[in-house]
Amino acid sequence: MTRARTPPYQAHLDFAHTLADLAGKAIRPHFRKPLSVHNKAGKHGFDPVTAADRAAERAIRKAIAARFPQHGIIGEEFASVAGAGRYKWVVDPIDGTRAFIMGAPLWGTLIGLLDGDEPVLGLMDQPFTGERFWSARGKARGRAPDGRVRPLKTRACAALADATLTTTHPDLFTTPGEAAAFAQLKSRARMTRYGGDCYGYCLLAAGFIDVIVEAGLKAYDVVALIPIIESAGGTITTWDGAPATQGGRIIAAGDARVHKEAIAVLKAVA
Amino acid sequence: MTRARTPPYQAHLDFAHTLADLAGKAIRPHFRKPLSVHNKAGKHGFDPVTAADRAAERAIRKAIAARFPQHGIIGEEFASVAGAGRYKWVVDPIDGTRAFIMGAPLWGTLIGLLDGDEPVLGLMDQPFTGERFWSARGKARGRAPDGRVRPLKTRACAALADATLTTTHPDLFTTPGEAAAFAQLKSRARMTRYGGDCYGYCLLAAGFIDVIVEAGLKAYDVVALIPIIESAGGTITTWDGAPATQGGRIIAAGDARVHKEAIAVLKAVA
Repeated sequence: MTRARTPPYQAHLDFAHTLADLAGKAIRPHFRKPLSVHNKAGKHGFDPVTAADRAAERAIRKAIAARFPQHGIIGEEFASVAGAGRYKWVVDPIDGTRAFIMGAPLWGTLIGLLDGDEPVLGLMDQPFTGERFWSARGKARGRAPDGRVRPLKTRACAALADATLTTTHPDLFTTPGEAAAFAQLKSRARMTRYGGDCYGYCLLAAGFIDVIVEAGLKAYDVVALIPIIESAGGTITTWDGAPATQGGRIIAAGDARVHKEAIAVLKAVA
Repeated sequence: MTRARTPPYQAHLDFAHTLADLAGKAIRPHFRKPLSVHNKAGKHGFDPVTAADRAAERAIRKAIAARFPQHGIIGEEFASVAGAGRYKWVVDPIDGTRAFIMGAPLWGTLIGLLDGDEPVLGLMDQPFTGERFWSARGKARGRAPDGRVRPLKTRACAALADATLTTTHPDLFTTPGEAAAFAQLKSRARMTRYGGDCYGYCLLAAGFIDVIVEAGLKAYDVVALIPIIESAGGTITTWDGAPATQGGRIIAAGDARVHKEAIAVLKAVA
């Protein structure tokens, strides 16, 4: 009966907290400071990478290599490490770089762990406010700025007509089909708000947002969020209802009824 | 030379900090808790007022009546108090109620003071993160979650093409002219983000956002922000370039060149 008392992945979760501390230490000095913004997307796009992003990912990769040299690593800033075993860390030091460069505290450090193809651990850290959200196959939990830790639980929402819908930015929907699908959801939802990145998914896990719809996400944008949302009682998949692990077009809902209704709308329009 | 050493309105500023502490104490227990949301705008709108909003405004009004019984009060939740002298407090306990009900920390408590028609003191408090921004005809200052206080200074931005533009929600623009004007600005700006309410104006004062354009604001949405933005080096007016004190269609910019360029665009389109 020892297994029941020691949650699976507990050592990995402890280590994920350490990684978040390291990342926060690397990032904090750069937040709300004048930044040298690189422009990955070239002249016509705007996808800033900051010194903070790179410094934090270096710190995370160094710590993983030292502690779990056989583990794989997928990160936003540097090349993937294949690893030799079943575990792969999926990290994004600053998810929400645009929020970061405009000084808003809605970005976060994402740390996820895949066991084979399965996301088994997720952590989101907001080092400016002191908030942190995590789950490793147990209860999802959130830490507030005052240090208090509480369980995360999605809220009941019977229908899209009662739902608060969010997305990071309406311009995420780059095809006419995607834009039409989002417009259709927006017209049916009770309220729609923009902004949030990973922070929004954690608010969904905490029971304050009912549905989030996005497109064009990468694996490192979403892997860490899957265990948090699922452990809190929510559902996160692609618009087709497939596993969200690879990113792409993503829908998350706190209540399975809203997930089902929204998937039907997306299928009909997109 | 005593006047140079004692900033004007210092006693009022000290009192504004006390009001913010009172409001925060009233609001904090309600944030990130299930809320009973009233619906002021009726069946077709969605303008929630929370228990927190009312409790905080009651606390603020009681404190003003006790300390400055001759002062007028304009607030969001209750009837105005005319007052008998030159001073009028303009307060909104929770600016950004939609952000509040979805758990995002981008709402704030706004406390402004009019001396005659002139906004001479402004304070914005975010009691969840511990941030506070203020000015009373002296330097604008901001307090971070770690307690450090720093001067606020808008950043240089030569042209709209280099500017980060924000607005709380694109649906603020309710007439075709307003929507077209915003679309025109968006197409010319370097980056556009949504969300923020009063928090966005403070980030503009801190030098992280270059221009904010909104419509349909009330006096209590804007009076407290005017001294903060102006003391930080920014400009805030109506779209016509008139004083922002009454609310309505508002434009704020960190650099006067961007303000001028944006006003010209708005004038040509709206």
